[in-house]
Amino acid sequence: MKTTVDKKETFIYLKIAGIIEKQIQDGTLQHGDKLPSLRTLCRDYGISQNSALSAYYHLESKMLIETRPQSGYYVKYSRLRMPAVASASKPSGIASFGLNEQLVSKVYDSLGESGHLPLSLGTPANELLPIAKLNKGLLQATRELSGSGVAYDTAQGNERLRRQIARWAMNMDARISYDDLITTSGCLNALSYCMMAVTEKGDTVAMESPVSFGMLQLAQALQLKVLELPTNPETGVDLNALEDAMKSGKIKACLLISNFSNPLGSCMPDKHKRTVALLSEKYQVPIIENDLNGDVYFGSHRPKSCKTYDESGMVLWCGSVSKTLAPGYRVGWTAPGKFKEKVLRMKLYHAISCTTITQEVIAGFLETGRYESHLRKLRHSLHANLLKYSTAISAYFPEGTLTSHPTGGFVLWVELPGDINTLELHEKALARKISFAPGRIFTMQNQYDNCLRLNYGLVWDQKLENDLKLLGILARSS
Amino acid sequence: MKTTVDKKETFIYLKIAGIIEKQIQDGTLQHGDKLPSLRTLCRDYGISQNSALSAYYHLESKMLIETRPQSGYYVKYSRLRMPAVASASKPSGIASFGLNEQLVSKVYDSLGESGHLPLSLGTPANELLPIAKLNKGLLQATRELSGSGVAYDTAQGNERLRRQIARWAMNMDARISYDDLITTSGCLNALSYCMMAVTEKGDTVAMESPVSFGMLQLAQALQLKVLELPTNPETGVDLNALEDAMKSGKIKACLLISNFSNPLGSCMPDKHKRTVALLSEKYQVPIIENDLNGDVYFGSHRPKSCKTYDESGMVLWCGSVSKTLAPGYRVGWTAPGKFKEKVLRMKLYHAISCTTITQEVIAGFLETGRYESHLRKLRHSLHANLLKYSTAISAYFPEGTLTSHPTGGFVLWVELPGDINTLELHEKALARKISFAPGRIFTMQNQYDNCLRLNYGLVWDQKLENDLKLLGILARSS
Repeated sequence: MKTTVDKKETFIYLKIAGIIEKQIQDGTLQHGDKLPSLRTLCRDYGISQNSALSAYYHLESKMLIETRPQSGYYVKYSRLRMPAVASASKPSGIASFGLNEQLVSKVYDSLGESGHLPLSLGTPANELLPIAKLNKGLLQATRELSGSGVAYDTAQGNERLRRQIARWAMNMDARISYDDLITTSGCLNALSYCMMAVTEKGDTVAMESPVSFGMLQLAQALQLKVLELPTNPETGVDLNALEDAMKSGKIKACLLISNFSNPLGSCMPDKHKRTVALLSEKYQVPIIENDLNGDVYFGSHRPKSCKTYDESGMVLWCGSVSKTLAPGYRVGWTAPGKFKEKVLRMKLYHAISCTTITQEVIAGFLETGRYESHLRKLRHSLHANLLKYSTAISAYFPEGTLTSHPTGGFVLWVELPGDINTLELHEKALARKISFAPGRIFTMQNQYDNCLRLNYGLVWDQKLENDLKLLGILARSS
Repeated sequence: MKTTVDKKETFIYLKIAGIIEKQIQDGTLQHGDKLPSLRTLCRDYGISQNSALSAYYHLESKMLIETRPQSGYYVKYSRLRMPAVASASKPSGIASFGLNEQLVSKVYDSLGESGHLPLSLGTPANELLPIAKLNKGLLQATRELSGSGVAYDTAQGNERLRRQIARWAMNMDARISYDDLITTSGCLNALSYCMMAVTEKGDTVAMESPVSFGMLQLAQALQLKVLELPTNPETGVDLNALEDAMKSGKIKACLLISNFSNPLGSCMPDKHKRTVALLSEKYQVPIIENDLNGDVYFGSHRPKSCKTYDESGMVLWCGSVSKTLAPGYRVGWTAPGKFKEKVLRMKLYHAISCTTITQEVIAGFLETGRYESHLRKLRHSLHANLLKYSTAISAYFPEGTLTSHPTGGFVLWVELPGDINTLELHEKALARKISFAPGRIFTMQNQYDNCLRLNYGLVWDQKLENDLKLLGILARSS
């Protein structure tokens, strides 16, 4: 991937910052420890004063270290002060039908009201998106597209965009060609066509639990039952449970958010992804893979996908730029493997084609280094936010509060001590203009009553910190 | 509706042209008759020389009259030379499942190839669309929308757009408020959500026959059976057959293209629309009304819709700007009556929301007089084209060729003498780079083998006339 900035310079300061961050995270460096002076850092690593400054600035913006005037740099973050990791889920093994739709409406209907802090969303704030650059791209697209984007696009979708998506998929070693891809109106729309292509009314599909309520709603709309699978907040779905479900012959398909899942933020290890692809082939159960967050990783490289290991075409890989560039553009895609013709027909029959011009803008954005450079900034902001949220939760939330430890994405799963009901807490918080997503909307079963999901894709400021504090106080008094 | 041009002046020349056109159409004025001089026209009607000239210019551009140098204006068009009206359809009364999808693909797959004349489409050529004005609107929308259209739109859709659609619906006396409306990604997408809201797999839906293959494909995708109803090429669906179907209790919903249907170009008289709305209430069978062509009328005013007469909320009215402004913008809508909540949930669950920015552009376009002024030009071009097509068919096609006589829209239905097979003709025409839509793709039954649909939403030029002539010669030799 070509970038417009000086690659070498970028690499050095981030590399040094990464080394120090690792030492902080693993406890080698502890809260209050003094860090090497800038001069020492330059000498030890053979870098410029500028790079050393950038490295410390980077760590400071993540609230990992702090400057003390006349004294130097000190570790601020302490792993011991972070909440411990949330529990693995144990949903019932009986497939359910019947989502509490009123509950979901209740949480999201209030969002239109002004002044509410939207901790309930799972999408980045406008301020984190490259709006001015997208606007330029829009102008360019009207000039480059024949008919300025007023004419119908083809059913399969913008070829320039599909070539770019295929190029990006190489980052995770997935062998996808532009002709394997179909564009859609966002990722949920891709999941919808894939679900319609491989299931029928009355079928059962397996999903992680807790799971994005959007996926439960989709299953509901298609009159499918949902088997919720036990899931680990760090490594995702339980593979034994998944294999048992496949072996039973009772599930028609499986929907997984492989990277930085919603609401847990879990990321399946690549080894697990390989197993999932193999199981899918062995039992001939299609995997609909929702990989819309994969580009927002906080580690050193993009995690792979189940599609990377898909030899038999049983994985229907879905993604979008709704969480990284432009939710309102409705640009998503799927590489549906052996189900391509069926999925293409679904798109053609339900909507003919996608919006022509927004696809072209995104194609242009991906072609240059703009996407990589934007992602770098976005990942940094989000990772910094996550650390700030964790610190705030540790400081203000009830003792015994657990959280997931996402390594990418936008959402944090919070597990409050057992007797705190987050539906009641939601009412109280709403009265104080704070909106979060209660755990109960991420399941069709009767569980997660003491859990909630927080969006950290917001702009960190004093108000946000105060609101998190207030939320903690409300939880403590519950 | 406010317009930016001088309304009074517009009215006068069009009114005079309309009077003369009527006299030509009903045979009062015949081929070769001399028309009044400009001076006489001015005196008789008390109009300016400019208005008189405009009236004749208008009639000339429709090829209804011609100027003979040094002599004056003469009638060129002759009703007697027009093809007689096509037959009413008599499909079998048995509901069918199983569209010949390969046939549809065969017709449309060839379209990407350069140089093919797309007589097979049912959409206007780019040249007939206001592309420059839409581009300006796009720029304006990035400035006016908070977040420049990068953020998610609401599930129900852009409110400014919904207000404009409601305002336009007053033209057909429909009492629709902005809150009754839901925006969609084009009209087919609206039909899709409405169908999903009122039917289930295995149900039977009634449609006109012949009918737009897009509607047959949608039924197919949702695993619905289709009962094709006898239809008159001028007045649309046979009301007795419709009532019988409703009374039988076998149909779950009815899909109708009320105005300038596809492929016939028929328009239900307003009286029929009232009856349909009453039957729908009486038998509690929802009517999904596809009214995407209603604004493209050639008469003096917009025809009404079934929704105009809908007292009980049983009519789900659907429309879009895909045929009048911007197919690639994917902007459509529905007013689903009492099914609003269900339809809204379908949209939310399958796609979250529509593209934000293109909705805003269309809202801006409808707010000003630009839409009315564009429609006036579009209607004129299409009506002129239709007359030219009819003349060409009369001159070049086999004796005994019948056609529908559309009073609006983009498509003409042609019925060749009984032994000519249009699937075979299609092969021959394709070899000569002419693509039309054979009748067989507009039904799930075995019929319309001697029929075809022509798109007259193209730019008339010598090549188009030559190609129609060539098509006629190929048909004659079949």
